[in-house]
Parts: sequence; structure tokens; C-alpha cells
Amino acid sequence: MVRKGILIVVSGFSGAGKGTIMKELLRKYEQYALSVSATTREPREGEVQGKDYFFKTREAFEQMIAKGELIEYACYVNNYYGTPKAYVEEKLSEGRDVILEIEIQGARKIKSQFPEAVLLFVTTKSAQVLKERLSRRGTETQEIIDQRLERAVQESEGIEEYDYLVVNDDLEICVEEIHSIIESEHRRLQYHMELVRKVREELKGLLKGE
Amino acid sequence: MVRKGILIVVSGFSGAGKGTIMKELLRKYEQYALSVSATTREPREGEVQGKDYFFKTREAFEQMIAKGELIEYACYVNNYYGTPKAYVEEKLSEGRDVILEIEIQGARKIKSQFPEAVLLFVTTKSAQVLKERLSRRGTETQEIIDQRLERAVQESEGIEEYDYLVVNDDLEICVEEIHSIIESEHRRLQYHMELVRKVREELKGLLKGE
Repeated sequence: MVRKGILIVVSGFSGAGKGTIMKELLRKYEQYALSVSATTREPREGEVQGKDYFFKTREAFEQMIAKGELIEYACYVNNYYGTPKAYVEEKLSEGRDVILEIEIQGARKIKSQFPEAVLLFVTTKSAQVLKERLSRRGTETQEIIDQRLERAVQESEGIEEYDYLVVNDDLEICVEEIHSIIESEHRRLQYHMELVRKVREELKGLLKGE
Repeated sequence: MVRKGILIVVSGFSGAGKGTIMKELLRKYEQYALSVSATTREPREGEVQGKDYFFKTREAFEQMIAKGELIEYACYVNNYYGTPKAYVEEKLSEGRDVILEIEIQGARKIKSQFPEAVLLFVTTKSAQVLKERLSRRGTETQEIIDQRLERAVQESEGIEEYDYLVVNDDLEICVEEIHSIIESEHRRLQYHMELVRKVREELKGLLKGE
């Protein structure tokens, strides 16, 4: 019997290391599948169609919205980002735990449609560490760093809606914590009703002397 | 800063191995404290007052009820069993995760008073295994085994109210699963609001150029 996959939303401050954590989680454990988002933004150097994103024209994206083919979508810096329903459902039915790396608005939409989804928020242990990581990338201008910090303030207002908080201080510890949270979620009663019903029937049978 | 303790209710079929699991959990991890119940039943050979139980007369027990000194209590085979509030609150404030080994009625009372309490149900993988374990103890008559199976049927009707189901097939795996569930519960957002508030304030400070 294939274990039912769990839908996992991972959000967190830009610079908290979500990307690295996801990569490490997928490298270490086969059970996870990263949801591939559809987007209207331009591909960056080295990004692969269907692997990093499903790159779409604005028209194609809006058609997906109209057809209800996206679980959630949002507009960010004038581009659409969305989660194709078919991909997620396929992976869940295969027993994979599907990770969505999305923001608070999307997380809310997911939770309303999939109440059993697990919402994780990744943070650094301090804002200073966050700023240092954003600066150290070296690829961003001061303006962009400030934009991201500004955005982090906004995002921090929604943290209370998440189920779990993980602090990315040590990458390996953080990855193990997330894996452990997901494995524990798999022990939730709702996923074992078949076993419960089986034992219940067996007990009744034993008492009848079957 | 002392991490806040979590209240854990462990229930399960008689014969599922709760006692052994608890012993192993306490042996391996210092963070756990077993709640000591008050009871009016007679001490068994080797049981120590204040360690295994607080043995009470019926009058003393009913006085504790009247004074509101018990979080929950129940009557089972004509004896009272209850959880003294003071002991539990003391351990929680010390940062210990307090385990209550009680039944469904008690579990319900705990959950209504402590909504953040974690309710675990321990089962064997089949009713047959349960019956074998009960028989193998050798200390119980067939009548008592049947009583316990009967009780197991009743208890199985309340399983849906628990948060997690753990299968005690391999003791060590089961103990690690429980520990992992509790550690994951400690990652719940509600326990980290102090950190969230701190990072939020720091972020605002960084943007103001402090």
C-alpha cells in the first residue's frame, strides 16, 4: 500500500536559505518532490523549462487560471507565479511528499484547499544574519537588498499562520528537523484509519471467538 | 531561556506495550517526566508511594476532587485514578515534557483544558499480536484477557480523537518515533513567538538604518 503523500508549503525570508535546504532535502530523501511552478517571468541563465519552472506567456498563464489548472497563483514584481494542480496531484498519488516553495498568500490558498497541508516557515536566528546573507551573495544591489528586507518585514506579519518554525542556523540540522516534522506528520491519525478499522474488526472477531 | 514543556497523553490498548515504551523513553531522554497518578487502588508488590502512584484513601481522593487538585480523574474497576495538577505544572515549568499514561476519558479532559497537549495512541499492528502479548504475560486469567480485549474494543472507538498513532512493532523504532513527534511538536510556531517578535523588530530596525 502506497503511503499517501503530504503537501508541504515552505516559506521564509529571502536569504534564509530555502533553496539550499530544499536541494539538500531532495538529495537526501527520495520521498520528496519539489513542485514546479508556472511563471511568466523571463528564464534566468541556466534555468531549465519544466525543471526550474514552466515558463509561460502571460496569455498562456491566464488561460491556466481561467481553466482552474492552478491551485494558487500570485503576482510578484509584475510577474505571475502559480502552482499547476495536475503535477502536484500526480506526485501525491505516487506517495511523494510534495514541497511548494511559495509565499504567504499562496500558503493561505493551499491551506484553505488542503487543510492537511503542512506550513513551514524558515527563518534565520536574527535579522542581522539575514542581511549579511543577502549582502554576501554579491549579486544584488543595495536597492534590491533593501527591497527584500522590506518584503521580509511584510512576510513576518504572516508568520503566525504557519504550523512550524524552523531556524536555519546549521543547514544539516535544519534539513533533519524538516524531515522529522514531515515524518511525524505521517503518524497523524487521519493517515492510519485503515489500520484502525482493521484492528477494530479483528478485536471484535477475537471476542466472538473467530 | 527554558523551553516550555509539552503535555503528552499516551493511551493505547492494554498489551500494546505502553509501560515498556515509557520506561525506554525516560531512560533515553532526560527531557521527559512521567506524571505520577493518584489512585485509590491497593499497591501491588514492589510499587512505591510517590513514584509509581500516590496511593490515597477514597476520602483523601474525593477531597482532592473537591479542591480541584486533579486535572482529570476516572473510575476504573471500582477505583479512582487521577492526575494531580501541581506535579504536572511544576514539571512543565521546569521545561520537562510531561507524559500522562491515561485513557480516552482522561485524554478528552486534558485536551479540553490543555488544547496544545499532544495525544498519542499506541497500538500493535494487529489484534492477534495484542492477544498473544496479553496471553504471554502469563499473569492473567482467561477472564481478565477477555475483559481487556473487550476494553480494547471500547477504546478503539475513541481512537479518532487522538493526534497521532504509533505502532509498537519494534520497541526502539516506536520510542524514536514518539520522541521525534514530540521534538517536532516543539517546532510549532506557538512556542517561538518570542523569536518571531525579535526578528520582526530587528528587521524594522535595519530598514530604518539603525
